[in-house]
This record gives sequence, C-alpha cells and structure tokens, in this order.
Amino acid sequence: MPNVDRWLLPDGIEEVLPEEAARIEAARRKLLDLFASWGYDLVITPHIEYLESLLTGAGHDLELQTFKMTDQLSGRMLGLRADITPQVARIDAHTLGAEGPSRLCYCGSVLHTRPRPLSTARSLIQLGAELYGDASCASDVEIISLMLETLSACQVQGVHLDLGHVGIYRGLVQAAGLDAVRENALFDALQRKAVDEVDKLTSALPDSAVAAMLRSLAGLSGGVEVLDRAHALMDGAPESVMAALDDLAEVAQTLGRRYPDVPLYFDLGELRGYHYHTGVAFAAFVPGVGQSVAQGGRYDDIGRDFGRARPATGFSTDLRFLVERGQVEPSRRGGIWAPYASEPGLQDEVMALRAKGERVIVALPGQVDSSAPDYGCDRILRHHQGTWQVSELNS
Amino acid sequence: MPNVDRWLLPDGIEEVLPEEAARIEAARRKLLDLFASWGYDLVITPHIEYLESLLTGAGHDLELQTFKMTDQLSGRMLGLRADITPQVARIDAHTLGAEGPSRLCYCGSVLHTRPRPLSTARSLIQLGAELYGDASCASDVEIISLMLETLSACQVQGVHLDLGHVGIYRGLVQAAGLDAVRENALFDALQRKAVDEVDKLTSALPDSAVAAMLRSLAGLSGGVEVLDRAHALMDGAPESVMAALDDLAEVAQTLGRRYPDVPLYFDLGELRGYHYHTGVAFAAFVPGVGQSVAQGGRYDDIGRDFGRARPATGFSTDLRFLVERGQVEPSRRGGIWAPYASEPGLQDEVMALRAKGERVIVALPGQVDSSAPDYGCDRILRHHQGTWQVSELNS
Repeated sequence: MPNVDRWLLPDGIEEVLPEEAARIEAARRKLLDLFASWGYDLVITPHIEYLESLLTGAGHDLELQTFKMTDQLSGRMLGLRADITPQVARIDAHTLGAEGPSRLCYCGSVLHTRPRPLSTARSLIQLGAELYGDASCASDVEIISLMLETLSACQVQGVHLDLGHVGIYRGLVQAAGLDAVRENALFDALQRKAVDEVDKLTSALPDSAVAAMLRSLAGLSGGVEVLDRAHALMDGAPESVMAALDDLAEVAQTLGRRYPDVPLYFDLGELRGYHYHTGVAFAAFVPGVGQSVAQGGRYDDIGRDFGRARPATGFSTDLRFLVERGQVEPSRRGGIWAPYASEPGLQDEVMALRAKGERVIVALPGQVDSSAPDYGCDRILRHHQGTWQVSELNS
Repeated sequence: MPNVDRWLLPDGIEEVLPEEAARIEAARRKLLDLFASWGYDLVITPHIEYLESLLTGAGHDLELQTFKMTDQLSGRMLGLRADITPQVARIDAHTLGAEGPSRLCYCGSVLHTRPRPLSTARSLIQLGAELYGDASCASDVEIISLMLETLSACQVQGVHLDLGHVGIYRGLVQAAGLDAVRENALFDALQRKAVDEVDKLTSALPDSAVAAMLRSLAGLSGGVEVLDRAHALMDGAPESVMAALDDLAEVAQTLGRRYPDVPLYFDLGELRGYHYHTGVAFAAFVPGVGQSVAQGGRYDDIGRDFGRARPATGFSTDLRFLVERGQVEPSRRGGIWAPYASEPGLQDEVMALRAKGERVIVALPGQVDSSAPDYGCDRILRHHQGTWQVSELNS
C-alpha cells in the first residue's frame, strides 16, 4: 500500500467530519433525552462477544452480516455486533431480571460484512428503544409513538408508517399445513408479489378456504380500509389470525387518533422481519427513499435463549441516516478569539468565558487576529484600558 | 454452549447497566462540551479499517493489540481500531488539510486483543483531544491544561502530573552512538531502574561525559528541582538535549502557575510512549491507582504516512475508568407515574409534561400505581375534578 493510499477507507466505511459530527451529536443528545423523558434507561452493550451469544435467538439471521475473529485469550470465536437488539434483550432477560415491564434504550455503532439492500453503508450508528414484559397493544402503540416522536424531533418530513402483523400469514400457513420447503417458496413469492406463483403454490392445498385467504394477502395493501376488507376475507380463519387482525386494528386506531397527520399504510402480504418478529411489525418511510428511516416490531421470544422469554417490542434507526434525512442544528455557534499573549489576567478571563459556555480559541505563537474567522470566531478578546474586553470581530 | 451460559461475556468485555450508563453519558456530554468550549471539533472515526491504515505510523506498536478480520468485499485484511489517535491524525493530515493549527476531539470505543498492563479491560471508551500544526510549548501547555480540566470536570480527586520529554534520552543515545541492540538493552534497563545494568551498558562508551549523563537519568526523578539538577548534570550535552530540558522547564513553569495545586513529578529515566512520542510526554495519576487516569504527549511525525507530517500533541483517557475514579451525577432525577387509562386529555397532558423535560412513565395494562417507585417515580398524574394534576406520590 503506497503512502498516498493509506487514507483509503474500505467500501461502506466512513469517517465523519466536524460539521456532520456536530449534527449527529446534537441529534444523539436530543433523542436520548427524548427516550429518558419516556422512561427509557440507557444501556451500553459490548462491541464484541462470543459468536454464540451474539447470534442467539433473534440474531440467527445476522450470521452472514457478522464479522468474526478469534479471541486470543480464550481461543474461541468472537463476533463484532451487527445488531444491538439481541444484546439489550439479554440485559433485560438475564442481567436486570426485572419483574414488571422494563424500558431500555441504546445508541452505538454496528458493523455489517455487506451493505443491506438499498444501502451502501456497512457502518451504522444504531439508536433504538425496547419495551419488555408487556404483550398488549399498549406497548406496540408506545413504541411506535416513540419512533414517530424520534423522527419528529429530527424534523424528518413527510413520514408515512407501514404497519403489518406477522401473525396473519403465520396463522394461515399453520392452518394450511404447508411443509417448510413450500412455505419458503410461498413466502418468497408473496414478497415478490408474484401472484401467479402464489396461485400455483396454494392451488393444491386441501383447505380451499385457507388457500383463498393466503392468495388474498397479495392484494391486501393500501390505507386503513384494508383492515376491513381483510376482516371480511378472513371470515372463518383460525383464531390467531383474527386476533392478529384485531390487534392491528386497535394499534392503527390509537395511532390514527394520536398522529392524524401520519398516513398509515398496510401490506398484509409484505412480511418485513418475518423470521424475527412475532406480532405487529412497522417501518417509517419518507418520500423518495426506498429504505425505511426507522423500523421495528414485536419479537416476544427473544429472551428465551438467555433463560427468560418475555414479551418484547422495539424500534431502531440509523442515527447518521436520520440526520441526513432530517434537520438537526447544533446549538453552539461562533466563538471568541483570544490573542497569544502572556499578559496577566488573560488566562483567567478565557477560563471565565468558557465557564459561561462560550467557545474561546486561544491563538498559538505566530497566529494573528485575522485568522479568527477561519476558526469560526465572530468576536475577539482585546486588552483595552487595563481590562480584557470582548468585542465584535470587525469593530 | 448451553442456554444458561449464553449471557457469558468474554474476559475484559463488559455491558454497562443503566445507573453507570447514565453517569458515562453525563460525563461524555460534559467533556465534549468542555472540548467544544476550547475550540476542539468533534470527529467520528471508523471502527474498522484496512489494517495498513490502522497500523500506519504511530500505530505500529498496536499491531498485537488489534483484532483482525477479512473483508468479504475486498478480500483484504481489516483491523478493529485499538487506538483512535492515528485515525484523527489522518483526518487532520489528509481529509481536512487545514493550513494553520487545528483542534479535533473524539469519543468512541476501542478494543484490545489483550488487556493493557495493570488493567483487565479489553474494551475502553477512548476520549481525547488533539492539537495539530504547532510545535511550540504553548500547544503542550494547552493540551495538558485541557487534560487537567477534564479530570477536574469529572471531580477526580488528588491528581498529580508526571512530566517527561523523550528528547533528553533520545539526544544522549544518538550522541553515544549506541547500536540498536544496545540501545534497546539500555532502554529496558532504565525502565526497570536496574542501575547496575545501566552502569555496565554505558561503561564502555567512548564518550565518558555522555555515558555519565545517561547513567544520571535513572536518578533524575522527583519534584521540579529535578530540572535544575538535570540542567547542571547535562552541561555540555548535545543541543537537542538542552532544548528538550528548556521546553520541559517552560511547560512546567506555566503549568505550575496555572495549576498551583497539581503536584508535578519528573522522571527523566522513565520514557512512557518512547517509541511513539517525539517531545513532551505526560500522564495524570491519582493515589492508589497504578494505571494513569489520562495520558498523552507530542508525536510530531504522525501525519507523515498520510502524506503530511505536522506537529501534533494530544491526550486521551478511558471515559469509563474516569467516571469510576471521579464523581459525575446525571442531572435527571425522579419522574411522574401516569395511569393506564383512556380518559381524553391524558395523552396530551403526558406529552406536555415530557416537553417540559419531565420523565413520565405511562403504566401498561394491569400495572397499578404502587409500582411507581420501582420505576423511579416520585410523583403521580391523577384525574381530579375534571383535570389532570401532578401530585407527590405519597400524598
């Protein structure tokens, strides 16, 4: 590697320069404060762990996404976290072990071996909140509301919400008695909205009513009226399917009341995070961006592998992506330029200004006052009639 | 790995639970605000990079400390950052390319394959500040002052400062014409204060004056009076040695004036970071802790491998270690418990309280008011005579 190329970064890995870093830090504080005001406690999870722990339970899908390396101390395989959610679930299930519902949040980097679909980034700043121990729709509503408040705090414009429930498809597939191979094929066909394939895969099913319901899923997308149509079409479906539809309707109704300006969109055939989620799943989109800006859902089984299965729902977002899509301005602006001088009292004056919250840059030997604007300073500290005084730069 | 063990973490890797995480977050904000008030701009560096970039220049010592893995996209070797300093130097040298002095700061996790001496941790939250482009003592003083302010902001008690300058030993070794093998042996003997070995290794040197100076290093430790003794003993030493002593004296004098309560300690034979540093080097200690709580120094050559050698000095600390040693309390306390209810106006009231900065926890179905203290709430929101009112919990 020639010297000149040592600054090259791997694809999808980026450094963040001061202007963007200041916006990210401002957003981070704003959002962690928001989470705290909702009662969510911050935890910090490890960047590396034994691979088995990292890929346990909900993490299995992440195996391909996870960088692996050998631990020199134990000789065992370690993974670099590609998702913080399972780690926080372990803290809830094992470490904290609270009796009642608990609320946790986190913010930290995750790394992926390959970019996700529709993205080039392999390094994300994952920020999210998780609510454990309550299986009711109230938790789904709280988490989705907090996600919408998160987007609103960053002034992300034009948000619409996709809502789904994996229990509908799951209940129908169970009732249909599909084997794993056919189920995978059907799942795949539904995701691609390949109606012909869906028809073919369901045509030979013994229960023609259930087959018709599965076929109808591909067409059940649109506004809240989809839920009424689904209710009619699923008449006679297994109880779990109707319960899922009822839950979805309740969540939609409460959100519609709280956030009348956020359009709700349903696609009962799209099964985002199907292998991961167990109930209501959701994602927020903005116009012109194919990738969701925030997403989440219910994943009630996540604590099981850590010794305690608890109901769980949560959401996450990539803080950097969010800041790019939104509008967050750091509060600090301008600054005071202080000369390089040994006059008594200068140092005390500088420290006093900083203690008041001012940004003060002290010149280094050879630096002249005309450099002040290069350092974002709009004022200057000058010795005048025996005291130090701050004046406008161009006065 | 049995289910029950999936929560085990590798040695030296830890998760941070809410109470400690809140203190770390509070300290992080306080210190990044402090850095900003001194004109240091935040940057965020990548967690993984091509190994050559990560180990370039000042990073070579870190090779053993760096976790390595293969990049699936390029087939090349990646490293997990074990030190943020060289990355920030690259941002200064290559990406920003400012003409005059520049100030950058950072805060992020680093990982080590093995714990450092006197430590068990392999995961640190490295926080630091770097000043580039100025070779004068004013920069050393600014960086050391900022380090002392950092410790003071976290209320770390009983700090004393170790000051040294690698130019003294380096100048003498050059004048002595030692080959690499002997120099290494001498360096090693000096670190262990093995006076007999130092005597032996220097006895055969052609220049007996320089040999005597090298021998004297092991005894040159103590308060600021050491510098006067050194000045006398080094009479006739190479110019670079005298210049180093003068620099050290100037830095010590300015710091002594600014921070009269911080004891200064010199050990001219101890060469902390010798292979890394090029000038004044320093470390802060507290009573009863063998490991320094913060450390740094001048490393003027660091930008060379990225195409631009610039003077550089900086310091860093482990934020988690700092918070353990100091006293940082998060400001937010208590909270308001809101019932699970569908009364109109409750949601608006909750949102209004949160917007005022209150922490409000809304009960989930089945939760009763007596749970409020378990969630750190000291007040409760009650419906009273047609309005929602906040009252003390036990009223």
